[in-house]
Amino acid sequence: MSEMVTLSLSEVHELATNCLLKCGASGEQARAVADTVTNAERDDCKSHGLFRIPGFCASLSSGKVSGDAVPVVHDLAPAVVQVDGNNGFAPLALEVGAEPLASKAKSQGIAALAVTNSYHFSALWPEVERLTDLGLVAFAFVSAKSFVAPSGGIKPLYGTNPMAFGWPRQNAPAVIFDQAASASARGEIQLHERDGKTIPDGWAIDASGKPTNDPTAALAGAQLPFGGHKGAAIAMMIELLAGSLIGDVLSFEATANDKPDGGPSSGGEFMIAIDPSRCGQQNGGALTHAESLFSEILAQDGTRLPSTRRYEARLTTPDTGVTIVPSLYTTLQNLNE
Amino acid sequence: MSEMVTLSLSEVHELATNCLLKCGASGEQARAVADTVTNAERDDCKSHGLFRIPGFCASLSSGKVSGDAVPVVHDLAPAVVQVDGNNGFAPLALEVGAEPLASKAKSQGIAALAVTNSYHFSALWPEVERLTDLGLVAFAFVSAKSFVAPSGGIKPLYGTNPMAFGWPRQNAPAVIFDQAASASARGEIQLHERDGKTIPDGWAIDASGKPTNDPTAALAGAQLPFGGHKGAAIAMMIELLAGSLIGDVLSFEATANDKPDGGPSSGGEFMIAIDPSRCGQQNGGALTHAESLFSEILAQDGTRLPSTRRYEARLTTPDTGVTIVPSLYTTLQNLNE
Repeated sequence: MSEMVTLSLSEVHELATNCLLKCGASGEQARAVADTVTNAERDDCKSHGLFRIPGFCASLSSGKVSGDAVPVVHDLAPAVVQVDGNNGFAPLALEVGAEPLASKAKSQGIAALAVTNSYHFSALWPEVERLTDLGLVAFAFVSAKSFVAPSGGIKPLYGTNPMAFGWPRQNAPAVIFDQAASASARGEIQLHERDGKTIPDGWAIDASGKPTNDPTAALAGAQLPFGGHKGAAIAMMIELLAGSLIGDVLSFEATANDKPDGGPSSGGEFMIAIDPSRCGQQNGGALTHAESLFSEILAQDGTRLPSTRRYEARLTTPDTGVTIVPSLYTTLQNLNE
Repeated sequence: MSEMVTLSLSEVHELATNCLLKCGASGEQARAVADTVTNAERDDCKSHGLFRIPGFCASLSSGKVSGDAVPVVHDLAPAVVQVDGNNGFAPLALEVGAEPLASKAKSQGIAALAVTNSYHFSALWPEVERLTDLGLVAFAFVSAKSFVAPSGGIKPLYGTNPMAFGWPRQNAPAVIFDQAASASARGEIQLHERDGKTIPDGWAIDASGKPTNDPTAALAGAQLPFGGHKGAAIAMMIELLAGSLIGDVLSFEATANDKPDGGPSSGGEFMIAIDPSRCGQQNGGALTHAESLFSEILAQDGTRLPSTRRYEARLTTPDTGVTIVPSLYTTLQNLNE
């Protein structure tokens, strides 16, 4: 195996930005995507780091995504704001929506953000963390393309549909989880196929609906939700929130509409933000009380809080930089020529 | 086995009401609990039907719950309302909170309800359905006593912590799911113990943290969340929403405070309601669009929508009545003397 390539976080950002600019993104679209990619590398979330840049670029080159899109904010109700992504990537639309969402949450107590007409290819924790950094509790919901069978069914219908939730802390980084409604990420199955490995029980069924440990059969069949029918119910809920509620596509519609260029598919994102000082507890009482839960969790051997691994990586990567495989570095250099 | 006792729904309601009145509930507290119990019997949800009345009554007799509590509404923010249950049962507090919650959701687009100082012993779908009946999308979150181990841990910390979600439909009853964050209901394990049966894999660990199929060992150990660490994350989220956020107890605090009289324990409930006509889709567009998802689900053999079994029962029980076991009927008659 050839040697890994080490990059500083500013080199990661510059490389991502330049690739996107070369492929036709505006400065703001490129910067917003590069921010999420750099944050993912910083937190050692490789699956949402530079690895995603070729896909983002492919959707610019194919013309599927508008690289110069300028998101537009619409005030829909006292506690609801919409950002129309105008066919651009989601990160800039989410960034533009954060301030009005936070402002509404603080003035109304709870508020919602509907991001529409955008292309999602990033983790959800960055937009949740942007809100927890402002002292808010936050949810995010995103659908995808059809990969997951409904409960009792055998054909893909739901996306892998992640849901994220974040709780702010006063003297520590926020507790945030960001988890797919599917038992595994689709990329995990693809990695098992590439490496000639079988997949664990419970991840997928083949095209005839039988449980399978063969990644190729799984990719031709359907992924399973986590936790059986309960995970399927959550996947369904996310379709309704990120699709029907806000006037964007359901996963099966995204699949039907998609230009399969290797990049993100179209979809909506729904967020909810809550001000913990407006729900019955003042002066940080809610956050102080929550610390007693976190203490009880950590008092048990073997436990950790969600996000801990990311926060640990974040302590070192600004100094050590991050490493990527040489083949990816070559691909990115080629995109950047 | 002796013969089952058949009761009409009005007899169910009268029997439940009279038992509660005899044990010291006010007319309004008794009626609100009897409504939820009758709705559960109507929908063939035996675990939340008359079976619960002895527990409700025990908490009145022990003095743990105030039978004459009058819930008080506090306006916390333009989009947040609180109902202080004043140490009474949750159903009346939830009923009192529904109108201000719905009104805020319609005027602000999204709104939240914090129910505090109340005792929960009912399913969540009745309060969700009250909101879907008004055309709103709704969530409900409730914690309980410590029964479920955190991810990686072996000791009970979280409650079985149900979460419910409802989506209104124009020409059909709402789609509502109401599911515990634990792999199984605690009562299911107790029923297996009573019947001398082993419990399925994945439900519980024993006191040493080893997976167990022995219901007695499970009850002395800890229940497991559904879907591994993802279900545990949801259980944690529900603790934070129904406890810390609204200034009520966490499950482990409810356990520490509880007078174990066989009735409900103290806790909070957090609800969110969203007006689907204020999130980017007007004139029922969100509901119309969602029907295409429901059609795609039902187009696959073996699927059904959440709540379908309840709605089927609801079609027949007003005519046929419901049946209860003779021992329960005797218990209720004794309470009613």
